[in-house]
Amino acid sequence: MDDVFAHVDANRDAFVERLAGWVRRPSVSATGQGMPEAAGHARDLVEAAGLEATVEPTGGWPLVLGHRPGPPGAPTVLVYGHYDVQPPDPLDAWTSPPFEPEVRDGRLYGRGTADNKGQHLAQLLAMGSLLAVRGGLPCTVKVLLDGEEEIGSPNLAAFARRNRDRLAADLVVWSDGPVDPAGGWRLVFGVRGIASFELRARGANRSLHSGNWGGVAPNPLWTLVHLLASMRDAGGRITVEGFGDEVEPLGATERAALDRLPVDVEAVKAELGLAELDAPAGRSFAERLAAWPTLTINGLHGGYGGEGTQTVLPSAAVAKCDVRLVHAQRAGDVYEKLEAHVRRHAPGVELVRQGSMEPSRTPMDSPFTEPIRAGMAAAQGAGPLLVPVLGGSLPLHVFTGVLGLPTFGIPLGNPDQANHAPDENLDLDRFQVGVKTAAAVLAKLGSSEGAASGTMAG
Amino acid sequence: MDDVFAHVDANRDAFVERLAGWVRRPSVSATGQGMPEAAGHARDLVEAAGLEATVEPTGGWPLVLGHRPGPPGAPTVLVYGHYDVQPPDPLDAWTSPPFEPEVRDGRLYGRGTADNKGQHLAQLLAMGSLLAVRGGLPCTVKVLLDGEEEIGSPNLAAFARRNRDRLAADLVVWSDGPVDPAGGWRLVFGVRGIASFELRARGANRSLHSGNWGGVAPNPLWTLVHLLASMRDAGGRITVEGFGDEVEPLGATERAALDRLPVDVEAVKAELGLAELDAPAGRSFAERLAAWPTLTINGLHGGYGGEGTQTVLPSAAVAKCDVRLVHAQRAGDVYEKLEAHVRRHAPGVELVRQGSMEPSRTPMDSPFTEPIRAGMAAAQGAGPLLVPVLGGSLPLHVFTGVLGLPTFGIPLGNPDQANHAPDENLDLDRFQVGVKTAAAVLAKLGSSEGAASGTMAG
Repeated sequence: MDDVFAHVDANRDAFVERLAGWVRRPSVSATGQGMPEAAGHARDLVEAAGLEATVEPTGGWPLVLGHRPGPPGAPTVLVYGHYDVQPPDPLDAWTSPPFEPEVRDGRLYGRGTADNKGQHLAQLLAMGSLLAVRGGLPCTVKVLLDGEEEIGSPNLAAFARRNRDRLAADLVVWSDGPVDPAGGWRLVFGVRGIASFELRARGANRSLHSGNWGGVAPNPLWTLVHLLASMRDAGGRITVEGFGDEVEPLGATERAALDRLPVDVEAVKAELGLAELDAPAGRSFAERLAAWPTLTINGLHGGYGGEGTQTVLPSAAVAKCDVRLVHAQRAGDVYEKLEAHVRRHAPGVELVRQGSMEPSRTPMDSPFTEPIRAGMAAAQGAGPLLVPVLGGSLPLHVFTGVLGLPTFGIPLGNPDQANHAPDENLDLDRFQVGVKTAAAVLAKLGSSEGAASGTMAG
Repeated sequence: MDDVFAHVDANRDAFVERLAGWVRRPSVSATGQGMPEAAGHARDLVEAAGLEATVEPTGGWPLVLGHRPGPPGAPTVLVYGHYDVQPPDPLDAWTSPPFEPEVRDGRLYGRGTADNKGQHLAQLLAMGSLLAVRGGLPCTVKVLLDGEEEIGSPNLAAFARRNRDRLAADLVVWSDGPVDPAGGWRLVFGVRGIASFELRARGANRSLHSGNWGGVAPNPLWTLVHLLASMRDAGGRITVEGFGDEVEPLGATERAALDRLPVDVEAVKAELGLAELDAPAGRSFAERLAAWPTLTINGLHGGYGGEGTQTVLPSAAVAKCDVRLVHAQRAGDVYEKLEAHVRRHAPGVELVRQGSMEPSRTPMDSPFTEPIRAGMAAAQGAGPLLVPVLGGSLPLHVFTGVLGLPTFGIPLGNPDQANHAPDENLDLDRFQVGVKTAAAVLAKLGSSEGAASGTMAG
């Protein structure tokens, strides 16, 4: 790969300028800012990488599809990324404006630098570099850039179902999120899913005086407190009936991989100012994020929240929650169990479903694992950490579930990328290695014996 | 009393104008608006009623004291009221501006019309009427107008301790709050106390991503949910250890009086849109407000509260609560029990005391009960409902506890007075009867045999 790597090194400044140009274009799916002009620019970037590209309408913001055939017999790699970004608020917390990218201390700062423009652009620049140096791609490559990842990819699964032929591939590769917190590169085989919901409790039809009505009118905050306490006990166990029935424990390979992940629990606790990890105790750090579903209260609000006191008995309260799902839970099934629990314990409370993603898992013994690992090692100098399941959620079930494709994640972001936050940034050394990584992975996949016939095992 | 009542009727318009003039002067203790000019005007009003009056400095807003001797041997009545008012926000919810009083449909609208300017002014106008018609007062009268009732009367008890001689009296009469919800006049013997506090829970030193940290970092909202659920169970019983130990059950007289109070529970439920009263069931409406302490969550806030979802694991959460205390609980003792409970169940949570008032109870068999009742009947046409304990809190323990005086409440406000809310108003017919009531009560107290030697029984 020395020829391609030399090309990447020689073009470092030009590649950074390309990324800055991409970050300079807002593409906030939540508010619409810069959409759909950004879809056209995403298509231009895919074309500039040497692929045919089209903007594809959906029920929401469009997708961008790209395609370039490779040598006969080589596998088809579908590269997934997203061109939309998180809203940049709060604006005044940014050191430099979110859509005026600026290099400081070897990093490019701006909204979308890491999540996800720098990461899919690294893939596209790798393709362009392979073409420039070698005149062709080692695999057939398809590119799918989502325009709605930051709002939950509500149209992605339907698009995949309608376009199975155009998306036909042997495997999926995505780059998103950070490398290991300790800095090591990693290869990711799965993600937890998510099911978000709101619990809405009502009391009287108006706020009341706690002296004149305390003990008489029900308090929706107490209703929520007791409902929530019935859903997860003080020991951290989720007590919604049947909640964990569909969970398939990790296999021996996955468990062994988790055990090899470097985690300095004491350092994490010190950095976050925590005396203890969350209950229940007795679970390893990596296992907590990979093997167990969670029930998180994202927010709970009701009644007075200002300075001092107000002797009010509130009329309404809302809890926002998310469940992180693990293989083989399904969001619809979990929602039904949550709804049944609420009906039993607090029939007056309304549960509102708010958006979900299924969990995704790719077997670690896939025939593509070894060539991807080898490509990463060639570009990165050492083999990556193997991560069976990430704690967060990405719409990968569309690929593993709907399309039945093994799906591999190669995060490029620095651990302190500050995605979804002010001063989002991408380490430009990692960006450069990321371009090399994407090129080497395609090269190894193309030259790998047997990989072309690989299919997903389960 | 016909002579005095005729004088009151003849001066109805002038009295309303006097009230409007008082309401026109803002006196918002929470913000300072109009204070201390209002103290001077309050003193003028007490002087205009024929009393000597002084403005008395405290550690906060001043008090106003008045005094006029009555016939030898007659009892000394200390009249308590407050000249400060609640903040008028939200201003745009008022039909007419809060400090530009306006008569509509037989009511005067404006901040403080009912709470408490119209009610203590009725007392002062009664004194003035007695003087005008009869040339003297039937009792020795002292007046104490608080400038900090709406912010919890933080300096009242200390003032009373420092001024026992100047406040020496045989009984206390106050007029505040509304008549019975069904419209009947009432004579009030006690109030619940209050102990407000905040529970502050912390997790990590910053908000975290629920996917990357869910199951790893503790969630302060779960901490509060489980702590609160341990303090009051789903059946409505307060489970803080020792919480009710000091409660002295109501006596037979009090229980019988509660049973006589007219409450249409079904109408109340319909009006508030409630299917059921609060748990536990099996307690009468009046008993809930008079005989039982409560633990109300006034507000609970943590994490995301906006539209849609945010996959956040919050770093902090706060619950604001109040306990309504009943005889013979003491706020300091209850705080200690709450603190011990928090230390046992959630040692990382901070409990912040936020202000309290002790409960107050005057025996219903006081020798002053009958003359007051008779005075009310003379002015109102029928004897009042006797209310052993109101659900709300007033700083009456200063009188019953610190000064050891039997203390009687004669609320004049209409049930829909909207105190503490926009469009606060006072029914002007009730205001007129209120002036007559105050005059007749003083007259009956002055002519009552044996009342002069009445002392508080317990």
